[in-house]
Amino acid sequence: MNNTPHAPVTVIGLGLMGQALAGAFLKAGHPTTVWNRTPAKAAPLVAAGARSAPTLGDALGASPLTIVCLTDYDAVYELLGANGVEPDPTTPIDTNRIDTTLINLTSGSAGQAREAAEWAERRGARYLDGAIMAIPSGIGTAEAVILHSGPEQVFAEHEATLGALGTVTHLGADPGLASLYDVAGLAMMWSVLNAWLQGTALLAKAGVDAATYAPFARQIAAGVADWLPGYAEQIDKGSFPAEVAALETDARAMEHLIEESEAMGVNAELPRLIKAMADRAIAAGHGGEQYPVLIEEFGKP
Amino acid sequence: MNNTPHAPVTVIGLGLMGQALAGAFLKAGHPTTVWNRTPAKAAPLVAAGARSAPTLGDALGASPLTIVCLTDYDAVYELLGANGVEPDPTTPIDTNRIDTTLINLTSGSAGQAREAAEWAERRGARYLDGAIMAIPSGIGTAEAVILHSGPEQVFAEHEATLGALGTVTHLGADPGLASLYDVAGLAMMWSVLNAWLQGTALLAKAGVDAATYAPFARQIAAGVADWLPGYAEQIDKGSFPAEVAALETDARAMEHLIEESEAMGVNAELPRLIKAMADRAIAAGHGGEQYPVLIEEFGKP
Repeated sequence: MNNTPHAPVTVIGLGLMGQALAGAFLKAGHPTTVWNRTPAKAAPLVAAGARSAPTLGDALGASPLTIVCLTDYDAVYELLGANGVEPDPTTPIDTNRIDTTLINLTSGSAGQAREAAEWAERRGARYLDGAIMAIPSGIGTAEAVILHSGPEQVFAEHEATLGALGTVTHLGADPGLASLYDVAGLAMMWSVLNAWLQGTALLAKAGVDAATYAPFARQIAAGVADWLPGYAEQIDKGSFPAEVAALETDARAMEHLIEESEAMGVNAELPRLIKAMADRAIAAGHGGEQYPVLIEEFGKP
Repeated sequence: MNNTPHAPVTVIGLGLMGQALAGAFLKAGHPTTVWNRTPAKAAPLVAAGARSAPTLGDALGASPLTIVCLTDYDAVYELLGANGVEPDPTTPIDTNRIDTTLINLTSGSAGQAREAAEWAERRGARYLDGAIMAIPSGIGTAEAVILHSGPEQVFAEHEATLGALGTVTHLGADPGLASLYDVAGLAMMWSVLNAWLQGTALLAKAGVDAATYAPFARQIAAGVADWLPGYAEQIDKGSFPAEVAALETDARAMEHLIEESEAMGVNAELPRLIKAMADRAIAAGHGGEQYPVLIEEFGKP
């Protein structure tokens, strides 16, 4: 019955994000229990219809699904008394047995997620790790992407309830996947922004304002994004024929980018890193192959 | 009459790209004159209906529009005898007067483009500088983007003829703009590819193949691309309120990306550069502002 539109849910941790999560469950009509170490944070949610649990144990027992969203994994362990850490004495719970599904949306690494999954399993809890690719104000809209990893069956059981939060996806059984996709996605975000800033800075020196250049940068980024599935096939096959351009041709254009950045008086660190990665692949004998052959350089420590 | 659908055109330089350009003009029905230092390269085009000019002077005189596509600007000057360089003795031309519109699609820097424009002006030629964002096999399709910069009137006069080559755009009167947009666009291309490779390498260590990860990377890149016009407004206003997230929050997530890359045994140079740029902006007092405030760091040598 967890999968009914109005399955009860518990939210532990009421920072800005936790409040947004609980608010979205309430708005979708889910009986929502909340708990926070500082109970005052629950007040606006209680006014909106939430039940404030008197103890952490009560919060964990109140719903078949419990969402945990704290500052970091240390805070999770401190609170739940996991991995040899004594539980917070003000919120005593039986840490030997947790009979709920825990979805941990706390930010952390893949390794931390896997550890937490093992800990939860030892206590008898079902566990999913998650990553929120959204800001609090986006929660409850389709734009909020929330990634989950762990047993698929556990995700399927609660997918309808989780749908109140945004666009929810399940990535695979390895609980570390949500965290890995999250940092990989952020790397893409910062890289698109940095490349755009590099171009914006270059064009600014020629008197072109940012608004004039932005549509061009947007078109290139979206266009290159469309190549990725095809390029991924080359990586999975381990074969990089130069269908579009050979890496050594790219390297000459990279030299232009460096020279132009230096000539225009803008930062050239990103251009130099781009070329350094390509030069290494060329030195390894891949100059006649296509760009995705660089995966070999990216895959090394 | 230059603007009629079948205006004559000359193409100088018949490397792979020059051949593709001439081929596209022929296919669109333009009387096409070609010239190459090694005349044999003209043979396939002559078979397709082109006229091979006996001399460079004849080639320049044959059409109101001449496209030049050589290896680099040195080759252009060597051939046309510009800037004090003696013209190739085997192809004597009167370098004091060139009565055609030259569109130079040779790869070079903004500075080289501006110099070439001045040289052409001294000879009485009209001049546009251009950059081809396509591979030879794409020429003649809408996917081939060809950027032009220089006097708008000159571009307008030949726009219909140039349309045979692909999607042609005019960026502004500064002849250096085509080159700057070109390298800026390439920086975006390599950055999207590198961020995708970083994520692909990370996920590969968790057993996720490239094809599985690619659609996610594509979605993030395209999504972030859509933010650029809005972020550009912040840059043009010089005001960076933290509507989405403050830079110092980003910096903590960047630290996760570095740690995760190191823990998974993949290259961490790109993550470290991302964080180094952000750390500098935070050190300059911008930690409470939004990402585009980094333009100040990118705009410095």
